[in-house]
Amino acid sequence: MSENSDKTSSGKAAVRRIEPRTLKGFRDFTPDMMIPREILIDRVKRVYRGYGFSPIDTPVLEYLEILTGKGSDETDKQLYRFTDSGGRQVGMRFDLTVPFARFSAQHIGRLGTPFKRYHIAKVWRGENTQAGRYREFMQCDFDTIGTTSVLSDAETALVINDILQQVNLKGDEPFTDFTVHLNSRKILTGLLEKIGLADKTIPVLRALDKLAKIGPEKVAEEMITQGGATEAQAASILELASISEGTSAEKLAALEKLLAGNDRGLEGVQDLKTIFQVAEASGVPEGRFTVDVTIARGLDYYTGTVFETFLNKLPQLGSVASGGRYDNLAELYTSEKLPGVGASLGLDRLFAGLEELAMLPETFSPVKVFIPLFDPALAADYFAIAAELRKAGIGAELYPEPKKLGAQLKYADRRGFTAALICGEDEKARGAVVVKNLKTREQTEVAVSHLAEALKGL
Amino acid sequence: MSENSDKTSSGKAAVRRIEPRTLKGFRDFTPDMMIPREILIDRVKRVYRGYGFSPIDTPVLEYLEILTGKGSDETDKQLYRFTDSGGRQVGMRFDLTVPFARFSAQHIGRLGTPFKRYHIAKVWRGENTQAGRYREFMQCDFDTIGTTSVLSDAETALVINDILQQVNLKGDEPFTDFTVHLNSRKILTGLLEKIGLADKTIPVLRALDKLAKIGPEKVAEEMITQGGATEAQAASILELASISEGTSAEKLAALEKLLAGNDRGLEGVQDLKTIFQVAEASGVPEGRFTVDVTIARGLDYYTGTVFETFLNKLPQLGSVASGGRYDNLAELYTSEKLPGVGASLGLDRLFAGLEELAMLPETFSPVKVFIPLFDPALAADYFAIAAELRKAGIGAELYPEPKKLGAQLKYADRRGFTAALICGEDEKARGAVVVKNLKTREQTEVAVSHLAEALKGL
Repeated sequence: MSENSDKTSSGKAAVRRIEPRTLKGFRDFTPDMMIPREILIDRVKRVYRGYGFSPIDTPVLEYLEILTGKGSDETDKQLYRFTDSGGRQVGMRFDLTVPFARFSAQHIGRLGTPFKRYHIAKVWRGENTQAGRYREFMQCDFDTIGTTSVLSDAETALVINDILQQVNLKGDEPFTDFTVHLNSRKILTGLLEKIGLADKTIPVLRALDKLAKIGPEKVAEEMITQGGATEAQAASILELASISEGTSAEKLAALEKLLAGNDRGLEGVQDLKTIFQVAEASGVPEGRFTVDVTIARGLDYYTGTVFETFLNKLPQLGSVASGGRYDNLAELYTSEKLPGVGASLGLDRLFAGLEELAMLPETFSPVKVFIPLFDPALAADYFAIAAELRKAGIGAELYPEPKKLGAQLKYADRRGFTAALICGEDEKARGAVVVKNLKTREQTEVAVSHLAEALKGL
Repeated sequence: MSENSDKTSSGKAAVRRIEPRTLKGFRDFTPDMMIPREILIDRVKRVYRGYGFSPIDTPVLEYLEILTGKGSDETDKQLYRFTDSGGRQVGMRFDLTVPFARFSAQHIGRLGTPFKRYHIAKVWRGENTQAGRYREFMQCDFDTIGTTSVLSDAETALVINDILQQVNLKGDEPFTDFTVHLNSRKILTGLLEKIGLADKTIPVLRALDKLAKIGPEKVAEEMITQGGATEAQAASILELASISEGTSAEKLAALEKLLAGNDRGLEGVQDLKTIFQVAEASGVPEGRFTVDVTIARGLDYYTGTVFETFLNKLPQLGSVASGGRYDNLAELYTSEKLPGVGASLGLDRLFAGLEELAMLPETFSPVKVFIPLFDPALAADYFAIAAELRKAGIGAELYPEPKKLGAQLKYADRRGFTAALICGEDEKARGAVVVKNLKTREQTEVAVSHLAEALKGL
C-alpha cells in the first residue's frame, strides 16, 4: 500500500476543487423531499405486508443478456450498459419486472407458489431528459405469481385502493379522492373473436388508445386502414368503447349483452363482477372502483384484468398505480409457467400530483421536539430528558452548540419544529421545563414527569 | 415504432432460453433473508429519526471525477465505471461518504448547520469475491456536520447503542450483549506531540494497529525502523497502548497522567469524559461503553473521537458499527469548512453475526394469519374478515386457489404462519370462524366480532 492509498475524502493533498454537481437527469433528495417519500414508502410497505406480500431484493447490475430484448427497442436503447473489469457485459436494471422474472426462474422451486412479493427500488433509463423525466427513479411493484385465480386480481385492486388511501401525508385520515379503473383484456379479445378480428388485437388496441385524443371517426379510420377492419367491425369496436355511461353494474350488463355467445369475453365480465363483489365485501366505498373499457395497457403483455388509478382532481396526470394480469412471467428463463397479476405505484408521478394538490407537508425535520442547549452546563440533563421522551415514543433533537437562545430557536423555526423545551437552573431545581409552542409562541412550565403526556397533546 | 418494439417479458417470439443467474459477487434476497433485514432497517431508521437525523438520497451514478481519488487506490481500482451514452465518464458510488460530501457542498447553504442526515443505500465495489465479500452491499450511515461540539460525539455513541439494542429480531426485548469501544485520535496525537513524534502519526498508527496480531516487541521494532522512533519513544507509545485494565474511569485517569502538560491529549480525554457523563444521564448501562486506546480507525481521516462496536460473543467478527469525528467533510468540493461526526452500521457483517448467534427469525411470511379458501363460494366473506383484521392492525394472507384444505395448510406451514382461520357455511351461519393454531394444531371457534382480540393473544 502506498502512502497515497490512505488519502480519504478529507485528504490533505487537496488543492484543485471539483465542481459539486449531479449528472443530467439525476437528482439529490434533500430532507424536505425525502421525509414525505419515506413516510409514504413506509405506509405502502405496511399495506403490502398486511396482505402477505414479502419483500425481495435483486442486484442493480445484471448480465446484459438478462435485460436486453425484454422491454421495447426503446428500453434497450436507454439501458445503462458497460463491460465490467472482469470482461462481463452488464447492465443496470431498467425495471423491476425483468429482474423478478429472472429471480422467479431461479428461486420459485424453493419458494413455492403462489408467491407474493413486493420490491421497492431504483431503476435506470437513459431517457430524454427534456421531457422532464428522470434517468433514475423508484419503482414500487407488487405481484402474485403462480396462480390464475381472479381472487388475486381482486386483492391487487384492494391493495391499490389501500395504498392510495395512505397518500394523505399531512395527516392520518384516509385519502378518498381517487378512482381505480378496471378493465379486462379478455373483453376486447372476446369481441374481436366474436366479430372475426382476433388476429388484429395490437393495431386495434393502438388505435383505440387514441380515442380521447383524436375522436371516434379517426380511430375507426385507423382501424380500417392500419388494422384491416371492415366498417362494421370498426363500428362494433367503437360500440364497445362507448360503454362509458352509468354505474359499473350497468356497464357490466351492457358488456354482457355485447359479448353474448363469446366465452372469453364473458369470462372477462365475470372476472370484473367478482372483483366488485370482493370490493364491496371489503368495504371499498361505492364508486371507488369503476369499469373502464378504454384502458388497455401493456398491449400484448397483459392478458386479463388491467388496472389504472387516477386522482379525481388531476386526471391529466395519468395513472398513478397501474398493472394487470399476465400469462407467463418468466418464460424466457424457465419452462415453468408462472401466470400472475401485479401492479406498480408510480411514486414520482404521484408525488408530482400531491405537490400540485398542495398535499405535501413542508417539513425539514423528522421530529417535532427541539431541545436548545440553553445552559451548556446542563447538557447531560437535556440528554436525560430526551432519552425519557424517546422511551415514550417521542423523538427529540438536541442543539449541540452553545449559541444564544434566539439563534437556536431560529434554527428550530427554519426546520419546522413544533415545540422547544427550555430548561435552566431554576426549572431544573423545580424538576420542570418550559415548553414553548413554536407556532403560537406560548410558554408553559411542565413537570418533567408529565412531559411526554403534555407533548403528545401538541 | 416497429412491431417488435412491443415485445415484452412474455414476448411471443421467445425461443432460446436464457440461463437465469446473478453476477459473481451479487446476490438475490429472498423473503427469508429480506424480512429480517427490513425489520432491522425500519428499527434503525426509527432510532435515527428519533434523534432528529433526516433521510437524504443521492444518485447511484456520479461523475467519475467526484468519485476517483477519494477513497484509496484500492477503491479507485474497484470502482464500477463506464462512459454513458452521452459520452460522460461516470461511476457507481463505492460509499455514501463521498456522495454526502458532494451533496453537502451543493446544498448546505440552503439546509443550514448543524445538519444531521442518515442514508441507507447500496454501494458497489468490484472486490475480490474469494474473500467471501459481496460487490454490492448496503451502508447505513448517519452524520452530524457543521459542528465541533463533543455533544454530537456523545449523541453518535448513544445512537450506536440504541441501534444495537434493536438487533433482537426474534422479539422486542433490547439486545444487551455488545460493547461500544471509544477512543480519541487526540490522545495518540497528543502523546506523539508530547514525545516529539508528531509528524509520524501514520506509520505509528499502522504499527499500533498490529498490536494484537504481532505483539508489543514487533510493534516497537516497526515503529523504530519504519516510523523513525527512538526506543524511548516507542516505549511511551506502548505504555499508552497498555492502558487496557480497569474501568473506563481508571483508564481515563491513567491517560490524564500520561498526557499531563499536552493540551490536545487532555482535550481528547475530556471529550471521552463528557461522552461517559452523557451516557450515564441517558441511561446507558455501566460497562456498555468502554475506553479502548487500541482502536484507531481511519488513519488520517478521523481527528477526534472514534467508535467501534463489538458483539461480546463474537469479537473476532470485528466492529459492526464504527465511525468517528472528522475535521472537514467536503473540502474537495467547497471552501466551506464542514467538521462533523458520524458512524455506520455494518449491516452485512452484523447479519453474519446474528446468524452465527442463531438470532435470526426463520420466517418466510410478513404476516402471521392465514385464511385458506376453504369454501370458494365464501371468498367474499373471507375478504371481509381480512379487511376487518387489517383495520385492527393484523395482517392476513388469503389463499387464492380452491385446493384441498390439507394442501393449503401445508403451504401455510412452509411459510411459518401462526394461525389459520377456517370458515364454512356452518361457522358463517354462527358468525364465527375456527382459529387453528398452526404450532399446537389446537382449534377453537371464535366469534368474528372477537377475532382481532383473540388473534392478538396468539
